[in-house]
Amino acid sequence: MTHETDICIIGAGPVGLFTVFEAGLLKMRCHLVDALPQVGGQLSEIYPHKPIYDIPGLPNILAKDLVTSLMEQIKPFNPEFTLGQRLEELKKNDDGSFTLTTSEGTTIHCKIVAIAGGLGCFEPRKPVVPKLEVFEGKGVNYIIMNPELYRDKKVVLAGGGDSALDWTIFLADVAAELTLIHRGESFRGAPDSAEKVVQLAAAGKIKLELNSQVITLDGDNWLNSLTIQDKDENLKQVETNYFIPLFGLSPKLGPIENWGLNLHRAAIEVNTVDFATNVPGIFAVGDINTYPGKLKLILCGFHEAAMMAHGAYKIINPDKKSTLKYTTVTGISGF
Amino acid sequence: MTHETDICIIGAGPVGLFTVFEAGLLKMRCHLVDALPQVGGQLSEIYPHKPIYDIPGLPNILAKDLVTSLMEQIKPFNPEFTLGQRLEELKKNDDGSFTLTTSEGTTIHCKIVAIAGGLGCFEPRKPVVPKLEVFEGKGVNYIIMNPELYRDKKVVLAGGGDSALDWTIFLADVAAELTLIHRGESFRGAPDSAEKVVQLAAAGKIKLELNSQVITLDGDNWLNSLTIQDKDENLKQVETNYFIPLFGLSPKLGPIENWGLNLHRAAIEVNTVDFATNVPGIFAVGDINTYPGKLKLILCGFHEAAMMAHGAYKIINPDKKSTLKYTTVTGISGF
Repeated sequence: MTHETDICIIGAGPVGLFTVFEAGLLKMRCHLVDALPQVGGQLSEIYPHKPIYDIPGLPNILAKDLVTSLMEQIKPFNPEFTLGQRLEELKKNDDGSFTLTTSEGTTIHCKIVAIAGGLGCFEPRKPVVPKLEVFEGKGVNYIIMNPELYRDKKVVLAGGGDSALDWTIFLADVAAELTLIHRGESFRGAPDSAEKVVQLAAAGKIKLELNSQVITLDGDNWLNSLTIQDKDENLKQVETNYFIPLFGLSPKLGPIENWGLNLHRAAIEVNTVDFATNVPGIFAVGDINTYPGKLKLILCGFHEAAMMAHGAYKIINPDKKSTLKYTTVTGISGF
Repeated sequence: MTHETDICIIGAGPVGLFTVFEAGLLKMRCHLVDALPQVGGQLSEIYPHKPIYDIPGLPNILAKDLVTSLMEQIKPFNPEFTLGQRLEELKKNDDGSFTLTTSEGTTIHCKIVAIAGGLGCFEPRKPVVPKLEVFEGKGVNYIIMNPELYRDKKVVLAGGGDSALDWTIFLADVAAELTLIHRGESFRGAPDSAEKVVQLAAAGKIKLELNSQVITLDGDNWLNSLTIQDKDENLKQVETNYFIPLFGLSPKLGPIENWGLNLHRAAIEVNTVDFATNVPGIFAVGDINTYPGKLKLILCGFHEAAMMAHGAYKIINPDKKSTLKYTTVTGISGF
């Protein structure tokens, strides 16, 4: 089954949600797609219980409550949602419309695409080590989701930032054996944490390998050892059940990268008149776009959504003039 | 006494108020000036009890309550207010700072001027009648502030729109004698109101002079009569204590017009990077500015205020880098 809509909004975070409202005022219907299983984007996924102070007119609101309010606000416009599915393909049709296909094969046919993808998907930065990918999920992890997984196991961490330091301190009491490998001599993370790690090593609770890096991984069906090389090219074999490089996360646009959009550092370039991209019919709003002066603030995304809706209206209704309706006079009439 | 501040904000409407918040996050202090005696601009003056539906995250809020919320939001930044005074003069000092002087002689010395003047001041449209200005405040009024002023007086209204019709209906029971003069044959106002006015005239409760206009005003220290001419050039003398032409209000920038700013149709031209005007150090945000795609929405003004604050920061702190602080991590630390 193909869903029909005016605007397909990619990303159901706060800006994607508010786009439904601004589109609805101009009588355009919306369908939202998000890889996450619930609406709200980062607000629901990363910090639902944190207060936000900079939404104008809301001196103090929990992130999850802002999502609830936005959902109430857009309700009259009856948006459709495809959640928990990632957009994989975009096809531009001969009549200028678009057909989008998700990871689960859901298709959405629309006149306008509004990308409200936030910071995109995050991807771990990986070290260059032969066979690293072979051991992914078989001893090699990039994110520590559940520390209990490592209880009484031999674990090797790598990295010099806060994440590597914090997890070293935390796992020192959890793992059977813990080694922290760092390419440099000193740490980039908080001085307090760095000091604590050095103390743990001095007390023999962890092993610390500075000026070193992992050069080989070994094992049959699961990782069982790795080789460390120091700056003098001395080699050391370490038995381990897990190797966890913690080199940070880098934002990644995903399949959007292949849609012919002008990009600048993993953000989509737009104009500031209606936040259109270089591809006619595709707009980008919120944290995923970039333009001179861009601030990654939710309140800026709301403005972009309003401007974008007027740009979309002109494409869908080339013969009509879009008029600015003040909602205070007439109230909201939905679909 | 001269008030010292970082940013002098002209206009204490919703966008002017929110500018205090965005400036405060970047450690800049603000002083607001408004000709109205209270904060909130149009929201307080024109439609305090009307609901607004398009503030993101606030599905339905009374205009006056939005003002209250914004005042709460900016409280940590302790702004100063000069209300009920109109800005008359702007002087640029040799060091790049500004000195502003109000109608009451209050002076404000600041590094940055942010014009958040909404639609500007409103000025009544005046008919062309000799000696009209002579009788202003001496029988000639353009706005009905307090209808009780006209109790048991002889009153002549002029106009064909809703305001003229509504006040005719209202004052019919208040004035001793009421005449409505209209240049045309039919009214532009609501048909219901027009019908009611015609009925009042038919019942002898008011006098209705269609296809007519006022051509002379007479009186010594106060208006006491005027002459009406109809389309056939017949003249009629009418004794009256008041003449109130209700021809609508037109927005007017006021003294701002003389500050060397690039204007376009009574709006101030700005860039979209930081909403700076052509005069270094002067910014314009909200309904008073214009740029390609401009929408006169409060939510757009909020975005402009955020961007503007970063532009102002760069001028005040030429050697520092402005960093975007997410309020959710650190909360608000005020002054």
